[in-house]
Amino acid sequence: MSEFSEWFHNILEEAEIIDTRYPVKGMHVWLPQGFKIRKHTLEILKTILDKDHEEVMFPLLIPEDELAKEAIHVKGFEEEVYWVTHGGLTELNKKLALRPTSETAMYPMFSLWVRNHSDLPMRYYQVVNTFRYETKHTRPLIRVREITTFKEAHTVHSSAEETEEQVKEALRIYRQFFDSLGIPYTVSKRPEWDKFPGALYTMAFDTLLPDGKTLQIGTVHNLGQTFAKTFDITYETAEGNHEYVYQTCYGLSDRVIASLIGIHGDDSGLCLPPDVAPYHVVIVPIIFKKGGEVVIDFCKKLQEKLESELNLRVYFDDRDIRAGKKYYEWEMRGIPLRLEVGPRDIENHKIVTFRRESKEKEIIDYDDTTISKTVNNLLDNISTKMREKAWKSLEDHVHHVETLEEASTTISEDGGIVTFDWCGDQECGKEIEEKVNVDILGVQADDENGICINCGKKSKHITLIAKTY
Amino acid sequence: MSEFSEWFHNILEEAEIIDTRYPVKGMHVWLPQGFKIRKHTLEILKTILDKDHEEVMFPLLIPEDELAKEAIHVKGFEEEVYWVTHGGLTELNKKLALRPTSETAMYPMFSLWVRNHSDLPMRYYQVVNTFRYETKHTRPLIRVREITTFKEAHTVHSSAEETEEQVKEALRIYRQFFDSLGIPYTVSKRPEWDKFPGALYTMAFDTLLPDGKTLQIGTVHNLGQTFAKTFDITYETAEGNHEYVYQTCYGLSDRVIASLIGIHGDDSGLCLPPDVAPYHVVIVPIIFKKGGEVVIDFCKKLQEKLESELNLRVYFDDRDIRAGKKYYEWEMRGIPLRLEVGPRDIENHKIVTFRRESKEKEIIDYDDTTISKTVNNLLDNISTKMREKAWKSLEDHVHHVETLEEASTTISEDGGIVTFDWCGDQECGKEIEEKVNVDILGVQADDENGICINCGKKSKHITLIAKTY
Repeated sequence: MSEFSEWFHNILEEAEIIDTRYPVKGMHVWLPQGFKIRKHTLEILKTILDKDHEEVMFPLLIPEDELAKEAIHVKGFEEEVYWVTHGGLTELNKKLALRPTSETAMYPMFSLWVRNHSDLPMRYYQVVNTFRYETKHTRPLIRVREITTFKEAHTVHSSAEETEEQVKEALRIYRQFFDSLGIPYTVSKRPEWDKFPGALYTMAFDTLLPDGKTLQIGTVHNLGQTFAKTFDITYETAEGNHEYVYQTCYGLSDRVIASLIGIHGDDSGLCLPPDVAPYHVVIVPIIFKKGGEVVIDFCKKLQEKLESELNLRVYFDDRDIRAGKKYYEWEMRGIPLRLEVGPRDIENHKIVTFRRESKEKEIIDYDDTTISKTVNNLLDNISTKMREKAWKSLEDHVHHVETLEEASTTISEDGGIVTFDWCGDQECGKEIEEKVNVDILGVQADDENGICINCGKKSKHITLIAKTY
Repeated sequence: MSEFSEWFHNILEEAEIIDTRYPVKGMHVWLPQGFKIRKHTLEILKTILDKDHEEVMFPLLIPEDELAKEAIHVKGFEEEVYWVTHGGLTELNKKLALRPTSETAMYPMFSLWVRNHSDLPMRYYQVVNTFRYETKHTRPLIRVREITTFKEAHTVHSSAEETEEQVKEALRIYRQFFDSLGIPYTVSKRPEWDKFPGALYTMAFDTLLPDGKTLQIGTVHNLGQTFAKTFDITYETAEGNHEYVYQTCYGLSDRVIASLIGIHGDDSGLCLPPDVAPYHVVIVPIIFKKGGEVVIDFCKKLQEKLESELNLRVYFDDRDIRAGKKYYEWEMRGIPLRLEVGPRDIENHKIVTFRRESKEKEIIDYDDTTISKTVNNLLDNISTKMREKAWKSLEDHVHHVETLEEASTTISEDGGIVTFDWCGDQECGKEIEEKVNVDILGVQADDENGICINCGKKSKHITLIAKTY
């Protein structure tokens, strides 16, 4: 187990994010603190999506014949689908799959829903649990058998151009979402052999974890008319013709939470962006023998003020334990901002602030009329710094190389991501993966003047490679 | 199919609540309008629970040996559990059940979590999908094979007294929740033969649907130490002894939404309590050839005002279709309040209000500074009237009877609920159920002076019977 892997596993337990002791391998329990982070993360995502997507919810179980309809698709999933075969003591007539993803649950219904060109575009999403019988080594939130937080959006359009636009819009949505969490990423077009089964092409977001390996955290697929033809999804045009629709889908998973934890955390534990932390602020009273009531009273009023004026989540920690123990605990849990208030602070119109992100402690002036603004600015600043720090760390680990040897050295010494010119040919790509012992993430940009790092042919692509999860 | 049953099925489709055409029997799709009602209903519930419960999320799949540990419990569910037997092309070593409810998923973990008396009480809840292989006739939201909205709370205590208190607290929580939705109910203690498998006793909420049949909409179980002993959940007392814990659990399901729809609806379609309606208010502009822009502008400002000042969900329906078509649609969808604004209204400082619940149309004075208050009062009044009307309707259909014959006549002529004295004896109760062709819902109150309606023995109980779903 790598150092990061051990850190990650320990912090999930200590910060009460996930309990991995559930008696089915690869299936875990969300603990209260983890559930809160998950909830606030979903709130941000849903606020973005709700602007022009409708939230729906489809059944978990997919009949065998529907799943099997789209041959390329089912081929991609057949080795990892869980099957329900019995209801009570009775064997079912038709096996039911636990959804690995919901195309084959949704699209037979889309075929009923789409009638006329005026019905289009349609944009739906759902947040559900999905299942993969993973045979690789499982890891909480990263490679699991029950993905408890699978956000999948599915859109339907009347033209190929519109799906191209929707892919761009989905990339914009995911950028906005990851930016709000301070998660840095690369965006690339996955190579042919790594695209979503049934898609024309797949765009992917990858982030970099502290152990130098990349993690796929979001994908956007242009499905073209593949599924429309399989599931007979047609619409009547203005001219009265019947045409197949065009589709896209895009998804995120629990890995967003894994990234939050892995990227921002440090030796003291979690470090959470304010927007998704269980609490934005924790208030710790410093109580001596005398004047305790004044401090408690002050802190309570401060809590109410921040809650009502800024709509913040504030925890007032008045437990009867040492302040140092509280500090340790809230730092480990990653609460972005701690306010400490003692009797002398109150007398002097001061309070102490502690930023989890920089570990800076500061004595600031306390003024009843401006404290909300001050706290708000602090939290904004914390979000910005965390995002900047995370981006810098990613960028520091992206290197352009000219030779395969250089690629190997860079990857083995620095980890991270290497960019290079590649001709785009599948056989050549597979050779590169083997020689450098990495995965090609995908094509990031066009480069008309490049020379392929492997075959020496004229190259059009700047491509990314990395060790991947 | 009864008249109500047909109405219910039609409105689910027409108001876009649920699509029942999904190709697995008893499993349905939540459509956008239905999903919104579900979401707002859950928001109300979670706000109440979050005060002293922690939200968590356990895996869907339960290993066969855990499910089988508690013999009485598994006996209650063995005929309706779905089994996963294969992962990919491989047969699993151990079968996995789709949770029918989560005691056997949670309590092995509780056994690890509970250590010391200071850990107690613990109060957790989750909202998840659960599964029952129903062999009876299924009905959307009422009897389904995938319960998509199963809210289950599980609490752990150090004494029997505390669980008694928690049962009372759970009843209070559910009363508050149902009251906020205007759903009337009876509360009774289920007879022995109808309690939750493994519980000491079960308290149940039943409501009455328009066809005269009752629907169980919530249950609260005192589990005593049954599961604690099975799953070895113990704690260390202050004196250093190890004792088994005491537990309760309580649950709600999709049936809450079924009740909302069934109880408040009428011949025009849905009628939704403001708090859970997709929109509190819909604004319909009345546009003639002239002055259209003024009206549109006025309506937009009104929308913004109500959204920002009252935090309401407001839909401004500026579609280019006849106003009458809009009225029909929004009435059918149950939006509580409609505001109509025409050019002459604006000139005269008037607007027209239409209450879905009473179908009253009224011309009211429009004043920029008071309109928010006026709308807020209207919505409050709508909620109150809906609750009162629903309660009156329930109370009108509860009758006390003195003889079994009277019980039969009342039930067959009026439907509804009949109360009577019963000795409490199981064999006698089963006789009553058979003679009147109904189910005993449970014991509602003590009555020291009663005489059992069936056996003539001294009776201590006022009991409820009804035709049930």
